[in-house]
Amino acid sequence: MSVLIVGSTALDSIETAKAKHSRLLGGSASHAAVAASFFSPVKLVGVVGDDFPRRYLQLYRRHRIDLQGLQIRPGRTFHWACKYERNMNRRRTLSTELGVFETFAPTLPKAHQTTPFVLLANIAPALQSHVLDQLRRPRFVAADTMDLWLNTALRDLLALLKRLDAFILNDSEAYQLTKEDNLLAAARKIHKLGPKYVVIKTGSHGSFLSGPGGLFLCPAYPLDKVVDPTGAGDTFAGSMIGYLAEARGAIENNIRRAMIYGSVIASFCCEGFGLQRTARLKRSQIERRVKELEKLTRF
Amino acid sequence: MSVLIVGSTALDSIETAKAKHSRLLGGSASHAAVAASFFSPVKLVGVVGDDFPRRYLQLYRRHRIDLQGLQIRPGRTFHWACKYERNMNRRRTLSTELGVFETFAPTLPKAHQTTPFVLLANIAPALQSHVLDQLRRPRFVAADTMDLWLNTALRDLLALLKRLDAFILNDSEAYQLTKEDNLLAAARKIHKLGPKYVVIKTGSHGSFLSGPGGLFLCPAYPLDKVVDPTGAGDTFAGSMIGYLAEARGAIENNIRRAMIYGSVIASFCCEGFGLQRTARLKRSQIERRVKELEKLTRF
Repeated sequence: MSVLIVGSTALDSIETAKAKHSRLLGGSASHAAVAASFFSPVKLVGVVGDDFPRRYLQLYRRHRIDLQGLQIRPGRTFHWACKYERNMNRRRTLSTELGVFETFAPTLPKAHQTTPFVLLANIAPALQSHVLDQLRRPRFVAADTMDLWLNTALRDLLALLKRLDAFILNDSEAYQLTKEDNLLAAARKIHKLGPKYVVIKTGSHGSFLSGPGGLFLCPAYPLDKVVDPTGAGDTFAGSMIGYLAEARGAIENNIRRAMIYGSVIASFCCEGFGLQRTARLKRSQIERRVKELEKLTRF
Repeated sequence: MSVLIVGSTALDSIETAKAKHSRLLGGSASHAAVAASFFSPVKLVGVVGDDFPRRYLQLYRRHRIDLQGLQIRPGRTFHWACKYERNMNRRRTLSTELGVFETFAPTLPKAHQTTPFVLLANIAPALQSHVLDQLRRPRFVAADTMDLWLNTALRDLLALLKRLDAFILNDSEAYQLTKEDNLLAAARKIHKLGPKYVVIKTGSHGSFLSGPGGLFLCPAYPLDKVVDPTGAGDTFAGSMIGYLAEARGAIENNIRRAMIYGSVIASFCCEGFGLQRTARLKRSQIERRVKELEKLTRF
């Protein structure tokens, strides 16, 4: 089945201790869409400026991503610049130029309104809700978020949560949202806000699922070198939704493996700048790491 | 087979945001010995003062811990006081009174010198080496450490590392020791310092094994309430060595399960102050959580 992904489509300039790359393809929806495309047909909804490089449109198309919902507007594409410290867990935003993203109103083409699987990747929760308003009875809706919206748009986020099947967020965001400092306690509170499935990401430690079938502890695939972690969380979420849309049977029976695939593709994402590694990925390489993760956790 | 455990035997005064307890049974060897006793006969080597409460000697004995190597000296027992912040990952030492521990020289009774499994729980690395000097061809030697020794006794620690089968340490200690900020890279460097098995603990995230059979990602048992994490690491190490001493066959075939048992018993440790929860534990309760961990990680 197909997947609708809405979020940011951006150009990222990223500096680490070892290298610096300008105007990479980035944004939550770009990372999520490419990741989901390994499993399912993807419809991307976003906005870019007329400066958006053609090669990036070609990259989307190579992944058979439907671009009918990608608006190309006069003006500049959303540009984000950041610098990672030597310890890659810390980064500093150097600049955020919203460009055409500032007035982005995601409007779904008619053909998109009946998409069964939906990922509301990280953008303002009011826009995420606006997308939901246009959808007709989606089968499964997941959303990601970021700390910014907890600080600036909490009401919108709480309204959105009531409408989600799954909510994906970082541990620090979960603690901030619930005022808890324990994952289980935080997940329990988030369930009460709406979502049946709560997925809490713990960075290089992995992620954690709380759902009707109980808990699942999802490991991260261990890497000995992280080149650039930008987009790993979006990649994780995109892989999950793509896998769920491809898998047969109940969500409950597939969601653990969906997270494992998310972990694996996110690990590849971290091995290159921006989408450089993810975009070259082959399904066989993904399957190999999934099998490895099975071995790494067996006891 | 039997296990020799050497380390600190102390009285701990612990304050958390919710409660305060004075002069609890504590110390690395106490936690490790009680944990190991669920699997194997344990010989404890340590020192206490003549103020050491009789009930704590009885507690050791209830766990069939051999106290022939526990010196009872005139003077005061090592006393450590600490205060946890609301976020239990942070604690502050309020006082450290070494008492009779200051001049502790672990001397092994003759009957102890042929013990096949040895855990050098956290004490000064020179003392850990001194114990090794007295042992005759132990089958398996593991050691734990703490950041203090990295700062004050690095040479002694490096000398010890050459003589270990397994080295167990925290992620932050592994990073400090190797100047790496990646678990795999740190483990690789530590192998070069001697130990065949490197176990890196990542707190509430679990732990990580690097050994001749490859890597193992060991989850932590998820808790919704941590009462007092003191001694969880010692409990983990003690459970591991106890399990390995009980299990038949090659270390390689048992070490993953040994870590899982370590995770489980450490989780119980965190559910009470000091040894209060661990000491009341039944093997059936341990087995139940091990089975649960299997379910929580299956995909």
